This record gives sequence, C-alpha cells and structure tokens, in this order.
Amino acid sequence: MFPKNAWYVACTPDEIADKPLGRKICNEPIVFYRGQGGEVAALEDFCPHRGAPLSLGKVIDGKLVCGYHGLEMGCDGKTVAMPGQRVRGFPAIRSYPVVERHGFIWVWPGDAAQADPAAIHPLEWANHPEWAFGGGLYHIACDYRLMIDNLMDLTHETYVHSTSIGQKEIDEVPCTTRTEGDEVVTSRFMNNIIAPPFWQMALRANGLPDDQPVDRWQICRFSPPSHVLIEVGVALAGQGGFEAPASVKASSVVVDFITPETETSMWYFWGMARRFKVGDPALTASIREGQGKIFGEDLEMLERQQQNLLAWPDRNLLKLNIDAGGVQSRKVLERLIAAEQGTTAEVV
Amino acid sequence: MFPKNAWYVACTPDEIADKPLGRKICNEPIVFYRGQGGEVAALEDFCPHRGAPLSLGKVIDGKLVCGYHGLEMGCDGKTVAMPGQRVRGFPAIRSYPVVERHGFIWVWPGDAAQADPAAIHPLEWANHPEWAFGGGLYHIACDYRLMIDNLMDLTHETYVHSTSIGQKEIDEVPCTTRTEGDEVVTSRFMNNIIAPPFWQMALRANGLPDDQPVDRWQICRFSPPSHVLIEVGVALAGQGGFEAPASVKASSVVVDFITPETETSMWYFWGMARRFKVGDPALTASIREGQGKIFGEDLEMLERQQQNLLAWPDRNLLKLNIDAGGVQSRKVLERLIAAEQGTTAEVV
Amino acid sequence: MFPKNAWYVACTPDEIADKPLGRKICNEPIVFYRGQGGEVAALEDFCPHRGAPLSLGKVIDGKLVCGYHGLEMGCDGKTVAMPGQRVRGFPAIRSYPVVERHGFIWVWPGDAAQADPAAIHPLEWANHPEWAFGGGLYHIACDYRLMIDNLMDLTHETYVHSTSIGQKEIDEVPCTTRTEGDEVVTSRFMNNIIAPPFWQMALRANGLPDDQPVDRWQICRFSPPSHVLIEVGVALAGQGGFEAPASVKASSVVVDFITPETETSMWYFWGMARRFKVGDPALTASIREGQGKIFGEDLEMLERQQQNLLAWPDRNLLKLNIDAGGVQSRKVLERLIAAEQGTTAEVV
Repeated sequence: MFPKNAWYVACTPDEIADKPLGRKICNEPIVFYRGQGGEVAALEDFCPHRGAPLSLGKVIDGKLVCGYHGLEMGCDGKTVAMPGQRVRGFPAIRSYPVVERHGFIWVWPGDAAQADPAAIHPLEWANHPEWAFGGGLYHIACDYRLMIDNLMDLTHETYVHSTSIGQKEIDEVPCTTRTEGDEVVTSRFMNNIIAPPFWQMALRANGLPDDQPVDRWQICRFSPPSHVLIEVGVALAGQGGFEAPASVKASSVVVDFITPETETSMWYFWGMARRFKVGDPALTASIREGQGKIFGEDLEMLERQQQNLLAWPDRNLLKLNIDAGGVQSRKVLERLIAAEQGTTAEVV
Repeated sequence: MFPKNAWYVACTPDEIADKPLGRKICNEPIVFYRGQGGEVAALEDFCPHRGAPLSLGKVIDGKLVCGYHGLEMGCDGKTVAMPGQRVRGFPAIRSYPVVERHGFIWVWPGDAAQADPAAIHPLEWANHPEWAFGGGLYHIACDYRLMIDNLMDLTHETYVHSTSIGQKEIDEVPCTTRTEGDEVVTSRFMNNIIAPPFWQMALRANGLPDDQPVDRWQICRFSPPSHVLIEVGVALAGQGGFEAPASVKASSVVVDFITPETETSMWYFWGMARRFKVGDPALTASIREGQGKIFGEDLEMLERQQQNLLAWPDRNLLKLNIDAGGVQSRKVLERLIAAEQGTTAEVV
Repeated sequence: MFPKNAWYVACTPDEIADKPLGRKICNEPIVFYRGQGGEVAALEDFCPHRGAPLSLGKVIDGKLVCGYHGLEMGCDGKTVAMPGQRVRGFPAIRSYPVVERHGFIWVWPGDAAQADPAAIHPLEWANHPEWAFGGGLYHIACDYRLMIDNLMDLTHETYVHSTSIGQKEIDEVPCTTRTEGDEVVTSRFMNNIIAPPFWQMALRANGLPDDQPVDRWQICRFSPPSHVLIEVGVALAGQGGFEAPASVKASSVVVDFITPETETSMWYFWGMARRFKVGDPALTASIREGQGKIFGEDLEMLERQQQNLLAWPDRNLLKLNIDAGGVQSRKVLERLIAAEQGTTAEVV
C-alpha cells in the first residue's frame, strides 16, 4: 500500500555515474541512466527484444545499449536502432518521469500525465553554501510505513540508540503532534539536560563546551509520500533553544527518504544536513560514518518487527500518544492512496 | 503433527544467562528469560505496543524491557509499565508454563490449565553426584519424528557412524521392541564382540583393556512427547553384560530431547550422561566433542530424507522389524494427538 | 516444457568415479553410479525403506548401498538384500535407461519402452584420434530453451563476449537459417576480417599468423532434445574459408548439451572439440579455461532474463531474423512435446 502518483527518491547521482542502475521501486523494475545531454532517464528494465534487463547493458553516446544483443534504446522507451534490423515496429517500453534535483534522482512510478516536477519536495539546505550534507543508503526488508513509524516516534532512540543519541529524557518529555494538510509534525523539546554522546561530539566540533546543560529539540516532519525530515539540535541551556543564535548551538536536519521497493521491502536514503563547520569534509565523513552505524541499529528491529506482523496479521497494535506521528502519517497516506484509487479512505 | 499439551525442552540455562532468548517451539514464537527471583518466564515473543520481538530487548530488574520503545513486560504477560503511559488497558500477551528442572528449561506450548510440572520426565542422572553430563544443540530442518525414527533404529550407526560407534553386529543382531503404556523400548544385546572406536576409548578412560571381547547393549526408551533416552555400554565379555559390575564396564545414557520448531524443523538437544570418571571435566569435554561430531553426521541424511518425503508425499515407506521402535512411538504420538484434539486416532 | 522421451546428457564419467551422483533431470531426482560390470545405472534417488536419497550411500561390489540403514539396491531398482530382512516383497523403484557413449552418460527420463540407444546423437569427433576435447559443466537457473536461443543467435557474442570471441562483423553479416527434419541450422560467414582474440590465439597455436585477414564461419546445429553443436573457425582469407585445407585454418566444434533440471533451471555441459594440436594437453587445458570464462559470462544474463520473463509473463518478445534459429528450434520442440503428449502442436 503506497501511493504511486508521487515523487520518490530513486538513487543518488554517484549510482549512475559509471553504468546503468537497475532498481525496483513501488514494484516497478526500472533502469536509471544518463542520456546524451546528461539528463537522467528511467525506463522499464526490460529489453523488448528478448526480455533481458537493460540495466546489464552499457550507455554509449547517451543511448542505453542492451548487453545481450545490442538493441539501442532511447530515453523515451522507443528503440533507436538495432544492428541489421528496422526498428520502427518495435514495441515501446514504459518510461517514467524522472528529475534530478537537490542532489537526488527522483522518480514518479505512477501515471506520468500527473507528474509535475514542481511537486518535488523543496530542500532548502540542498546545494546551499551554508549547509553541508552527507548520507547513505540501506535496503531494509520491511514495509516502508514501519520506517515512517520509527522516525515519527523518536522514543525508540532511548532503547535502540542508547549509546549515541538516546537518553532517558526523550521518554520522559511528551511530544506534541499536529497534522497540517498533508504534513504531520511531531515535536519534543527537552530543556536543561546533558547532551548524549553524539551531540557532545557536535558541540565540540562547533567549538562549544560539551559538559554544560543544554536545551535539545526534535521536530519531525512527515510529508508524502514518505519523506521524514527532522530538525534536531542542542543549544547551551537557557539561550532560546531551537531559536538560540547559531553561536551557542549545534543543529542539523536528519534526512530520511523512504522508497518502497515491494510491499515488504524498501530503500532507505538517510543523511544529515548540518549548518556548522560546513567547510570541513572530514567532519562530514565522520558524521556520515557515525550516523550510518546508528541508523544500522534499526535494521534488525524493523525486519524482525515485519516478520512478527506477518506472523500475527490479525493482531491490533497499540496506538499511544507517542505513536501519533506515525498514526497521522498513515492516515494521510490512506487518504492519498484512496484518492488515487478513486475510493473512499477506510480507517485501518 | 505434534502434541502441544506436553513438556518440551526449550533451552539450557546458559542460553538465557546474559539476555532473553527467542525460540519458536511447536510453531509458537516464544521469548525465554529470568524474572526478578531468577525463575524462568516464557512469553509470546511479541510486544503489544508495536509488535517488535521482545527477545531483542533486555532484562532489567527481572522485567523484560522491549528493545524498541521501552515497554516493561511482566512474567505473566501483563505490561508493568511504559514511559509516559498508563498501562492498565494494555492487552496481555500469552504466557507459557515453564519450569527449570534437571539442568534444562521445559516449556508447555499447549493449554496452560493442563500443565502439571509433575509430568516432566524424571532424569535420575541429572544433578546426581555419581553421574556427569555434557551435551549440545543442533537445529535440523526435518520433521521431529524422523529423528525419533533415527534414534529408535540404531542400525543406522553401522552406516552413518561407521567410524565411531557403528559396527556390523548392530545389523546382524535382531532388536526386540515393546510398548509399555506411553513408553516404547527397543533393545539389542551383542555379546562377545570387539568394541568399536568410541567404546574402546571409553574402556581406556575407565581403566579397562580395549582389545578384549565385550558384551555391548543398546536400550532405547521413547517417552512422549519426543524424548529418547538410550542406555548404552560395553562390559568385558561374559561378566553379565548390562548387569555386570561397574568395575568391568563402561556405560552411559545417550540423551535426546527432540523439540519441534515447525512441522518440518526441530531443535535437537543431545548429550551423554555417564557413570564413570565423573570428576574428569576434560573427559566430559572430550566426549561432548566426539558426540557432537558423530551426531552431526545425521544432519544431512535427515534433512535430505525430509526433502525426499516432501517430494514424494504419496509414497508408502517400509516398516520393517528394525523400524518397530519408530512405528510404535508414532502410534503413541498419534493416540496422544488425537486425544488432545478430541478425535479418534487413525492408523497412518 | 521439455520432451521426456529423449536422450539427455546426465553427467560425465568423472562425476561417478568415486561415489554415486544425485542429479535432478527433467524434474526426476536420479542417482547415477556404476554397477558390478562397470556399466552405468540410473535409479530414482529414493530408498524404498525410509525415503533417504540413495545418492548419499556407497557403491560396494557394484551394489548401491543406502547410507542410512544399509539396504542394497540393484541396478534394476529391485532390492538385492538388507541386513536381517527378506527383501522379496520390497517395492521396486524406477530405473531409467542409461548409456555411456562418446565420453558422456546419457539418460532417458521418459517412457523406458521407447528408449533406443541408436537414437543417441552421433558425435564424430568423440574418441577420435584426430580430435581433442575438453569441457565443463555449469548449473544455470533458467529455462533450458533460453540457452538454446542464446546459442542459435551468436550476435550476443558481440556484447556478452566482446573481449574474446565477439566482434562487430557478427552483427553486420546476416545469418541464414533452415530446418531439416528435426535439425535446425543457422550459419554465418564473415570474410576478410580480423580475427578476435580467441581466434588469434588459435591461429598462433596452429602455427599460423594472427594478424592477417581471415574468413570466419559459425554453423550452429540444433538437434533435439537440446543439443547445439557449432562448427566454428577461421582460415587465412581467400583460401576457401570453411572448405580451406587444414594447413591454413584453425577450427573446432563448440559442444553444448543442455539438460533441463526443472522448468526454470538446467545443467549446461559445454566444451570444445578441436582438430588441431590434438596431442597437446596443455592447450586443451588452456582452451578449456578460456572457454569456461567466456561461457561463464552468459550466466548472469540468462538468469536475469529468466527472472524478467517470470515477472512479465504476458509480454510478447520480438522474433527477428537473428532469432530464427531459436524460434525454429522451439517449433521442433513443440512438435515433439505435442507428439509425446498425443496432442497437436500449437504455435506459441
């Protein structure tokens, strides 16, 4: 259950730098590559000649050449040429709307007629001189909505990430959740606490003391189809917290693009955009490595949770106040999916 | 097809020493751990909050704390606490009768009301100063009854274990089989033979010559649901065999607890309780290592036999006199399963 | 979809030299071994006693002894003996017609009454003093017909094997295809070209210059059920090509025996029979290694093509003139399968 009429992050530019990339997105096997002008193309990963995956081929002069018998495919899904053959009657394969923006490749796996690039989520920090970004990709064998739940309820940090970003106060301070149109925001503000290890590191990197009380914030923003961008940070206590001047805080945006592969598997594009020490690539690499380890701690939990849910399909789960972010995000999704299917949303 | 109203060996104490253990038994995913008083608890491995496996959590002060969002579960399946939540209305999860006895953790996966710890199989040798025990655990992808068949017909030793405990005389000397209530006993007595390598080692360890003729015995006892305890040994020939005085023999009990995981997989708790050189832990380790290798020789055969039976489901197998132990054990099981299901046993 | 009333290559003699071999052919699990006189036997891989795979047993004095409980099986599928048992009433297992010929073991998985060894494909080069042969075996997870298609359209060499035997001229020179009874022949003759790396090596091995223009030929012969024998070679240009005298050419037969395992997997026996430097075993080994690498390049393509065809079962593929060899071969197979099933062939 996922919207198909939506822009999903499909891959990052480095993944198509040397050769075509085959990736299944929302149950659609797609090949991504760069055409002659450098623009990204996305096609069914299926050669009309004998059904070979086009992603096993090569890109030559901006044409995707099938690695089996040399059919040359154009970016629009129409065969351009094939040695010794007239190609006019060849059946076209499906092409998908695809856009490169903000450092990501975005694909629209649904009805192409409805694909409007203006609907791609704005990322203020992308390609911005005052921001630095680093990130990575995980494949996780679970429903993409379990990852939305995970990110919209950060109390799990206290347990899953206890040695890095978790701390008891996340559990103790209530969160507030609100839905604004298609966006769901869940926030938690913890004042006058000791920063956990990750944020102590960030304070030091920012030239601030790491042993002073701080005000910490987490503002999780879900937007369809499955983006969760989280403003996180600490400021020296009593200086205004989230609103404090940059000189007394360390803050960043946790970036989560969650792309369904199948009903029970997903691609997880994670990263961090930060506003301090922007010109320090070693710090970017260090944060990326640390974040990769922390976010890797979720994998076993999510995959085993998925297996449990498949084994007990009829069991109702609890929806506590901490779950409100995930619950409201799922409602937005249900509404969008129902609209896409022309039916009325049922509360599940 | 297995009885659920029965005590099965679930695990050994070392498996729950440091953290909770998740194990599926008779198709029930269960988490095992020690509560506040050190007593063992067994619960559904499913957190009522979001369905995470509780076995990924930690035990803190005798409470099982979910590793995802910190729900604290009590040994009775009722939630004790959860940060920031009132837990009275939380749905309870199932708890299973569980008993620690004889050096094993026993679980009753069926109707709790019928679980009587007095029905746990007596093990005279357990925690007895005149006996020493060592053992291990294998996971095997076959119906647990194939392992019962295996152990109730030791002619396979001649072929599967030809370099350790097998010898031609096992094939040549007939066995006798009888059913006494729910117990099935199949026995073989081989007199005036040369001991095979394993028993030569045991004779030497016991200070006896290893090149003299011996009388050898094998008395296999099946008892429900799936325990097979085998009295085995050799005595210098003509001294009374099984009844000979301890000074002229080496003997032990082969211990086999066979716990279904699913219809086609099982947990195999194997071991050996011996009555000689009891105070020699190096000998215990050496026997354990040797037995582990020998019993490991059965794995491929059992798993490939299972695959064959699934591929030819309609084929009738032979039931020879050597198979009487397995055949009669299966009849006992069919009777118990039918009684449990309130139906009449059919001969299959 | 494969004929069962046909001779397939099952294995090579070295595979049954030391112990029985279990191999599934056309969905039939079969054990192969040598009986008392050295003749090959092929039986259902299922012991009538308890269903163990007989291929886990041993051959003793030409009898296949089950590795579980010692049942002795005869080459005709009738039990010969079993320790302590009268075997007359034991159910027989199926035996399969099997013949050792031309350096291969051939099996007939269908109706034994129709199995005529005279129908085994003649291999003129086998055991012939003027020819040398080397080959190997791959297991590939695809429909065996995808491999027939592969071998009957060698334009794929230009793309899949671009660094060894591929060259642009294969694409550019049309092939001609004809069906003669049950045989399909597709040929391509490329004159006055530069030899690709593999053939340059062969020219040098044959004492010929490797930098002169050559005439190259490829004559692919399909014969049922799934043999593809390909005459390939190069001759110094203008000397008669395929018909040129041996002194100015290097030529060989590419040997492909394709044996279905299941509907979507196969055993691929590949090799090369050559007519030059026959007494040079180091050259045989070197060619075998090179061919193994080249033919290994097809594996991923074939397996991924199979996955694509399973994912898009309703899509029609193109049948271009280069595909005529595969298309006509499949028609022969459809006709034979229909005859075997007593129905009329439908064009698929």
